[in-house]
Amino acid sequence: MHAMPTHQMPAPAMPAAAMPTSAELFAPIARDLEAVERVLRQTLDSRQPGVARLVSHLAHYRGKRLRPALLLLTAKACGGVSPAHHTLAAVVEMIHTATLVHDDVLDDAAVRRHASTINAGWGNQASILLGDWLFTHAFHLAASVDARACRLIGATTNRLCAGELHQICERGNLDLGEDAYFDIIDGKTAELTACCCRLGALYAGAAEAMIERVANYGRCLGVAFQIADDLLDLIGEERAAGKSLGTDLHQQKLTLPIIWHLAQAPAERAGRVRQLLESPGNHKREKLAPELEADGAVAYARGRAEEFAARAAAELAWLPPSPCQAILEQLTDRVVHRDC
Amino acid sequence: MHAMPTHQMPAPAMPAAAMPTSAELFAPIARDLEAVERVLRQTLDSRQPGVARLVSHLAHYRGKRLRPALLLLTAKACGGVSPAHHTLAAVVEMIHTATLVHDDVLDDAAVRRHASTINAGWGNQASILLGDWLFTHAFHLAASVDARACRLIGATTNRLCAGELHQICERGNLDLGEDAYFDIIDGKTAELTACCCRLGALYAGAAEAMIERVANYGRCLGVAFQIADDLLDLIGEERAAGKSLGTDLHQQKLTLPIIWHLAQAPAERAGRVRQLLESPGNHKREKLAPELEADGAVAYARGRAEEFAARAAAELAWLPPSPCQAILEQLTDRVVHRDC
Repeated sequence: MHAMPTHQMPAPAMPAAAMPTSAELFAPIARDLEAVERVLRQTLDSRQPGVARLVSHLAHYRGKRLRPALLLLTAKACGGVSPAHHTLAAVVEMIHTATLVHDDVLDDAAVRRHASTINAGWGNQASILLGDWLFTHAFHLAASVDARACRLIGATTNRLCAGELHQICERGNLDLGEDAYFDIIDGKTAELTACCCRLGALYAGAAEAMIERVANYGRCLGVAFQIADDLLDLIGEERAAGKSLGTDLHQQKLTLPIIWHLAQAPAERAGRVRQLLESPGNHKREKLAPELEADGAVAYARGRAEEFAARAAAELAWLPPSPCQAILEQLTDRVVHRDC
Repeated sequence: MHAMPTHQMPAPAMPAAAMPTSAELFAPIARDLEAVERVLRQTLDSRQPGVARLVSHLAHYRGKRLRPALLLLTAKACGGVSPAHHTLAAVVEMIHTATLVHDDVLDDAAVRRHASTINAGWGNQASILLGDWLFTHAFHLAASVDARACRLIGATTNRLCAGELHQICERGNLDLGEDAYFDIIDGKTAELTACCCRLGALYAGAAEAMIERVANYGRCLGVAFQIADDLLDLIGEERAAGKSLGTDLHQQKLTLPIIWHLAQAPAERAGRVRQLLESPGNHKREKLAPELEADGAVAYARGRAEEFAARAAAELAWLPPSPCQAILEQLTDRVVHRDC
C-alpha cells in the first residue's frame, strides 16, 4: 500500500507527436505491463539451451502488447488490476504468440517485425513445436488462476483454431461470401480480443451486463483491426509493416475488398480479377491494389472497419469515464488508421 | 444401480489366441472405454464441414486407446471409475492425437495406421491447425473437471513439448549420450503415460503414496514402450507397423541401439556407422539394422526396455490384487514385445 516512487518518469523533452506511441498511450498501465513482462519471463524460462535460444528469438516477435493492454485497461476501467490480471495478460499474449509462430509456418513467411521468423531461422519443425510449447505453457499458466479462466481461455482458443481452420478450408474459394469472411475473422482475431476484455472486466468484479458490453467492445475492435490488417496486406508498405505483404493474395485467401469487388464490379472487370487470382506468379498485389482502390473496394472495406470501430466505441458509453476508458476509446481509432 | 444387460457378449466361437487382442485384454473396462468414445465424439463434433471432414479422417489415427485404458485401469485398480475419469481419458487421448498429427508433419510421414496422414491428404497447414484445434479442445475439456486437472495436464504437456523440442534440437548430433536420450523419451512419451496413471489414481481417491507409485509405473511403462517403438522403427516390418519406418535414421534422430553402438563398438565399425548416418540417401535402415543386430546393440536396447518394464511391474505390488491390476501387469510385457 506504500507506493515508493523509485522510478519517476521525467517530463518528455519533446512535445508529443500528434499520434502518441503505444508506450505513451499505455502510460497509465505501464507498471502493470512490466508486471506482465515479469510473468512472461518467468514462465518462458527454460533450462534447455536449445529451447532457450528459440524463446529468446521470440523477443523479435514482440509487438505492441495490444492484447495484454486491452485486458489491463478494461480491468482498470472496471474497478482495478489484480495479480490474476497480470497472469491472464501473460496467458493471452502467449496464445497470440503461439498463433503467430504457427501462422508464419502456414504462410511460409520469412520476416516478421523486421526480423527473421522462427521457421526461417530454425525450420518448420522447431516452429511447430515451439508454437505447441507456447500453447501448453499458456494453458498451464491459466490453470494457476482458476478453472473458470481455463474454461474461458479454452473456449476462446477452440474458436480461434476453428476460425483458422475455416480460413484454410476456404483457401482458393473465389466465391467466398462476406458472411464466411466475417465468421473467419471473428474466430481467428476478434474472439481473443473479446476474451481479453471479458477477463479484464470479470476479474475486476464487474457486473454481468458490463462484462458483456466490454466483451462486445473487444469483439468489434478485433473485427475492425483484422479488416485493417487485411487492407495492409493488400495496399500497405512492406517497410513500415516489417513483414512480407501480399500473402493473402498469394495464398488465395479472400479478404473484404476482393470479396466486394468480385460481387459488385461489372462482370468483365470482376472476371479479370478472378483470372489474376487464379493465375500462378507472385505479383498479384501490384496489379490488384490499384484496381481495388479505383473502384471503391478499398473504401468499402475501410468503411466497414470504421463501422465496427464505431460500434466498439459505442459500447464504452457503459463504462464510467476514466483515463483507461478514454484510452480504450482512442484504440478504436488507432486500429483502423495504422500502417503497421 | 440396476444394470440391464441389453447386449450380452456371446461366448467366443474360437479359442482365444495366446496373445489376447487389446479388446479382449481391456474387456473389464469395455463400457468405460465406450463412455470415453462418447465424450470424444461429443467434443470433436464440428458444425464446419471442412473441420468435420478432417476430424472424421482422424478415425484412421485411432490406435489401441492405450492412454485412456491406462487411466481407466488405474482408476479401477485404485477404487473405481467416475465420470471425471471418462472426461480425462478423452483429454489424454486428444492430446496424444494432437501430437501424432503434428509428428506426422515433423516426420513428413505419408502413412499412419495403414491410412494416409492428414498432412498427406490435406497438406501441412491443415495438419498444424488441426493439431492446435485438438490441443485446445483437450484443454477446454479438462477445464470442465477442475483446476487441478488443468494444472496436471498443463504441466504434462509442457514437459511433452519440451521433450519434443529437445529431440529436434539434438537432430544430427551423433554424440548424443544416453542421458539425453532418456531425457527426451521421458518427456515426449513417459510423462503422458505417467500422467494417465496419476489422474486415474488421484480421481479414484487413492492415497498420495499410492498415486506416486502408479505414476512411476506409468513412467517406466512409457520409457519401455518408447525404446521398443524406436527399435520397431529400426528393425520392424512396415506392413505390420502400418507406417513408414526408418524415419529416425532418415532424420538423424539417434535412438538407443545407435547410441550404444557409437559408444561401444570398435572405432572402425563405429566410424562406418557414423559415416552412413551422415550420408545422404534413404536406405540407412537396410544397411544399419543387420550391423546393430550382429553386435548386440539391438539386444542391449531390448534389455533396457525389459528392465524398465520390470521396474513398472514392481510398482504394481503396491496395488491390491484385482483383474485391472493384473491387466496393468500384462501391459508391461506387451509394450516390449510388440510388432506394431
